[in-house]
Amino acid sequence: MIVTKYEGNKTFTVGEKAIEQPASGEVQIKVAYCGICGTDVHIYHGMMDKRVAMPQTIGHEMSGEISAVGAGVTNVQVGDKVVVRPLDNRGELPSDKGISHICKNLKFIGIDSPGAMQQYWNVPAFTIHKLKASTDLKLAALIEPLGVACHDVRLSELKEGETAVVLGGGPIGMLVAFVAKSYGAQVIISEVNPVRIAMAKSWGFDVVSPIDTDLVSYVEGKTDGKLADVVFEVAGVQPALDIMTEVAGIRGRIVMVAIHGEPKPVSLFKFFWKELKLIGARVYEPEDYEKAIDLVTKNELPFEELITDVQPLTKIQNAFEQNDLNPNGMKVLLDCQN
Amino acid sequence: MIVTKYEGNKTFTVGEKAIEQPASGEVQIKVAYCGICGTDVHIYHGMMDKRVAMPQTIGHEMSGEISAVGAGVTNVQVGDKVVVRPLDNRGELPSDKGISHICKNLKFIGIDSPGAMQQYWNVPAFTIHKLKASTDLKLAALIEPLGVACHDVRLSELKEGETAVVLGGGPIGMLVAFVAKSYGAQVIISEVNPVRIAMAKSWGFDVVSPIDTDLVSYVEGKTDGKLADVVFEVAGVQPALDIMTEVAGIRGRIVMVAIHGEPKPVSLFKFFWKELKLIGARVYEPEDYEKAIDLVTKNELPFEELITDVQPLTKIQNAFEQNDLNPNGMKVLLDCQN
Ligand SMILES: NC(=O)c1ccc[n+]([C@@H]2O[C@H](COP(=O)([O-])OP(=O)(O)OC[C@H]3O[C@@H](n4cnc5c(N)ncnc54)[C@H](O)[C@@H]3O)[C@@H](O)[C@H]2O)c1
Ligand SMILES: NC(=O)c1ccc[n+]([C@@H]2O[C@H](COP(=O)([O-])OP(=O)(O)OC[C@H]3O[C@@H](n4cnc5c(N)ncnc54)[C@H](O)[C@@H]3O)[C@@H](O)[C@H]2O)c1
Ligand SMILES: [Zn+2]
Ligand SMILES: [Zn+2]
Repeated sequence: MIVTKYEGNKTFTVGEKAIEQPASGEVQIKVAYCGICGTDVHIYHGMMDKRVAMPQTIGHEMSGEISAVGAGVTNVQVGDKVVVRPLDNRGELPSDKGISHICKNLKFIGIDSPGAMQQYWNVPAFTIHKLKASTDLKLAALIEPLGVACHDVRLSELKEGETAVVLGGGPIGMLVAFVAKSYGAQVIISEVNPVRIAMAKSWGFDVVSPIDTDLVSYVEGKTDGKLADVVFEVAGVQPALDIMTEVAGIRGRIVMVAIHGEPKPVSLFKFFWKELKLIGARVYEPEDYEKAIDLVTKNELPFEELITDVQPLTKIQNAFEQNDLNPNGMKVLLDCQN
Repeated sequence: MIVTKYEGNKTFTVGEKAIEQPASGEVQIKVAYCGICGTDVHIYHGMMDKRVAMPQTIGHEMSGEISAVGAGVTNVQVGDKVVVRPLDNRGELPSDKGISHICKNLKFIGIDSPGAMQQYWNVPAFTIHKLKASTDLKLAALIEPLGVACHDVRLSELKEGETAVVLGGGPIGMLVAFVAKSYGAQVIISEVNPVRIAMAKSWGFDVVSPIDTDLVSYVEGKTDGKLADVVFEVAGVQPALDIMTEVAGIRGRIVMVAIHGEPKPVSLFKFFWKELKLIGARVYEPEDYEKAIDLVTKNELPFEELITDVQPLTKIQNAFEQNDLNPNGMKVLLDCQN
């Protein structure tokens, strides 16, 4: 089987090894596709070298088919199409209060342990979500980031008829926008990249460039002055933090999806004045994965167009290099059988 | 009647004027006591001169008795003991979504219009909450700040058995701590002023000075590692903002009570990582006032000791000057009939 490894210093190697049988409680997956996530790009740039045990196989946005099951595995069978929810919560403590998906000792599979950018991947059976036999495995590689979006929107308690403003139309922001729309909300995307703006418009979204247009007045105009009921911060930049408290209406909820490594200035005054809520959101819970699976199964959204490139697994180095050169691309997949 | 006025430049004048009859829809209150609030101190220091129409009577933490009613007033009668909920929401708009107490055009009575630091005060009848005839009007002057505390704790959704950490044991923080305790929570106060620490200890609170003790380890020890379910930021300083995201446990709720005039650095990473919530809280809704009235009526808490000084209304200048010189004092009242 082909296995890729991140070696540090922006370098992946492609090698061969024997297929390993799954241990007790594990399943072996024949990986179909694995998406390149922002986190994988971070790893590639050496920003997570302390956490990643190099040389290491990375990748977690995958789809595949069960090719073998270890002893005691009863929830899946060989031939099942599946995705992995890459959260290993076996170190969970009582102080985690049952909130497993972000427990203190959580291991993220594909970062803290080997990932899916290989032909066959062994993972604990409890991480598996089953797909319908009819599911397109290419689209199914979007289930992980779509699960993030489903989690974000669920935690926002968005209701039909409310207005959601999505700051940042990258892969995660676009998926958040689709999910918010599926809740029956009015969705407005704020994005600065003209190619991504055009892409979002082609999918029927109301998109604003905050450079050309005053976003707050725009949203005011679209909401009879109410402003946003929910704001998703998915841009990860200071201008988004500055505007999130402005564009939120009275008692608006702001979901913090973006990862801000350093403390950043926030208008706490606006939180007080308008009784805003800030809601931190991280990865997903099982129900978010099920919702994402449902959306991909129905296939009513332009998921196909979100996938802007597919490269063979053996071209992993090239795929990461190209991805860096193309800020307009959305989701790049590795085809793990080629 | 005696009337006081803020004239700007840290100066109050005390004068005489004829008692005015209440207009239609208004009531006339014979003011008993009026507390000096942090906001009043801000006004005295000239920090709100743009908002206050000098010379102006200020004050909003009051108690009193109805002495006359204007045409059409049916909710109260002469002789009723009352407090005023000093929020004038007559400019409410549909875009306020029915959230009256912080509506965009809200006028705060005693800041944006004349206040209670006078012998008789006319206010709209809809601002009145009635008290039992047996209520001690001195303690009743605490209902307004206690209403703030009731609002803060209600919005936190604090549950019995949870742990609440109160950052800042000033008048508001202490009241928040009392209300949190009345919910059946374990309460830990963090305060730096030794006199206030001693005061809180005398009331049976678990109090930590974050200068001497590592607050996070302390709370960890008191919660089997769970850390705080709810954190109240009532200190208004950067060290409190730095620690609030540390001392909150997984999915902890942080209530922003303090007013931070400028954007301040906040660890958004911790919001993401632990799925924290930040909840902005401003003033009170009618039910918070009713809860505060109930607590004062029951009189089971050491409200008397929170009142560290009572000065006659005519000594208002002296009261504000003394208040500035004594950072240890808690609540100073003006006796508005003397
Ligand atoms: N919470 C989670 O569990 C989770 C999971 C995955 C990703 N993330 C985070 O979500 C964020 C978004 O991820 P992504 O992969 O979509 O990233 P991305 O960088 O591709 O997307 C960010 C988008 O914001 C746009 N942008 C930049 N400045 C802007 C501005 N001022 N206004 C509006 N838009 C602006 C960029 O052009 C870009 O399209 C990242 O911070 C990522 O780390 C969080
Ligand atoms: N949300 C609202 O509607 C509302 C209403 C009233 C007051 N407030 C605000 O609430 C805050 C508190 O009001 P107050 O009258 O009690 O003020 P205060 O200044 O008397 O109390 C603040 C307390 O924090 C303490 N403190 C300072 N540094 C600290 C630290 N590092 N850790 C712990 N404690 C520390 C101080 O010693 C002081 O006792 C103010 O910001 C005020 O503007 C808000
Ligand atoms: Zn990912
Ligand atoms: Zn006040």
